[in-house]
Amino acid sequence: MKLHVWGRAPNPRRVKIYLAEKGIELPMEDAGDGPTLSADYYKSYAMSTVPMLELDDGTQIGEAMAICRYFESERPEPALFGSTSQERGLVEMWERRAYDLALTGVAEVLRNTNPAFKDRGLPVYGDVVPQVPELAERGKWRIAKFLDLLDEQLASNEFVAGDKYSVADITSLCALDFAKVIKERIPEDKKNVLRWHESVASRPSASV
Amino acid sequence: MKLHVWGRAPNPRRVKIYLAEKGIELPMEDAGDGPTLSADYYKSYAMSTVPMLELDDGTQIGEAMAICRYFESERPEPALFGSTSQERGLVEMWERRAYDLALTGVAEVLRNTNPAFKDRGLPVYGDVVPQVPELAERGKWRIAKFLDLLDEQLASNEFVAGDKYSVADITSLCALDFAKVIKERIPEDKKNVLRWHESVASRPSASV
Repeated sequence: MKLHVWGRAPNPRRVKIYLAEKGIELPMEDAGDGPTLSADYYKSYAMSTVPMLELDDGTQIGEAMAICRYFESERPEPALFGSTSQERGLVEMWERRAYDLALTGVAEVLRNTNPAFKDRGLPVYGDVVPQVPELAERGKWRIAKFLDLLDEQLASNEFVAGDKYSVADITSLCALDFAKVIKERIPEDKKNVLRWHESVASRPSASV
Repeated sequence: MKLHVWGRAPNPRRVKIYLAEKGIELPMEDAGDGPTLSADYYKSYAMSTVPMLELDDGTQIGEAMAICRYFESERPEPALFGSTSQERGLVEMWERRAYDLALTGVAEVLRNTNPAFKDRGLPVYGDVVPQVPELAERGKWRIAKFLDLLDEQLASNEFVAGDKYSVADITSLCALDFAKVIKERIPEDKKNVLRWHESVASRPSASV
């Protein structure tokens, strides 16, 4: 079994933090080759993204949360996807929001404005996907919407999905830390988000 | 407990098919008011999207897969998120791909080209999010990428995530059926996808 990652990219980081929280160690291989993933990696994996977990029989499990689900099933404790039905629903809801609004928002700004991503407006290999500069505004809108929702949620909850740390905290942390690449910071008036960020960023798992 | 839905919108349909497959019945309320969701609904739910499950204590669980996770925990059989660790990982992977590539792709085309969605380039309430016509191309690229991956997968698998029907089939079906609104059909050369579609579309659950 081997986990394919790439430098400090946010999606592999979601899995690395998850594994650190679970106390799971496994071999990792960096799929990068300078500014992009390596040609060998692209050839070996049709989805062409990281992270990807390669099982011993060759099965490829991509998408950060899919890899985490695999390990949650293998080692259920500590539960990072919730324990009760309500917790499980709320963790999934907040994790999806963190991904769709915050992480997607940052990626939308970065990939459509940074010259390094010319013709790679989506994370693809081979095809040309032109940048759409208007998406910078839309990406910022997504991030702002997430921060509004999250600040309200954290006014009465210690963690993103309630009173327990979960994958919703992991994706939120990775997304908001990733926002540094587009020079976005958590605004001063989002006091609950700032308090939460200080707490989750200080956990040993966050240092990966 | 009550499920908020809206006409034949694809995200509520994901949950309705799931519930039909599980044999779960519950009260549903249509949040629509003509061409948009109702003002009352917008006021009552900050995320402003459907579906949303309202529990008896007022807890709101939004996002289609979060609602399904809630019910999967309440009634585990038949398992629609996989049973083994590997199945669970692969179901999550394919469900995410179906959502990020196919469902998002169709929505991207529709919302950024159809005059009915002027200033609503994202599903939001209140804010103006201008349409970005260039996203029509990008949305079509996403759909094509998904069809390529899926046709290859279905060459050796009966269902999207393997040999069992799962939520990955549900999201894929809803996304590809939704593509009718942008006049996209499954291409003739995607023979495995066509075979699969005929099979899953004929299940009683698909008639919702």
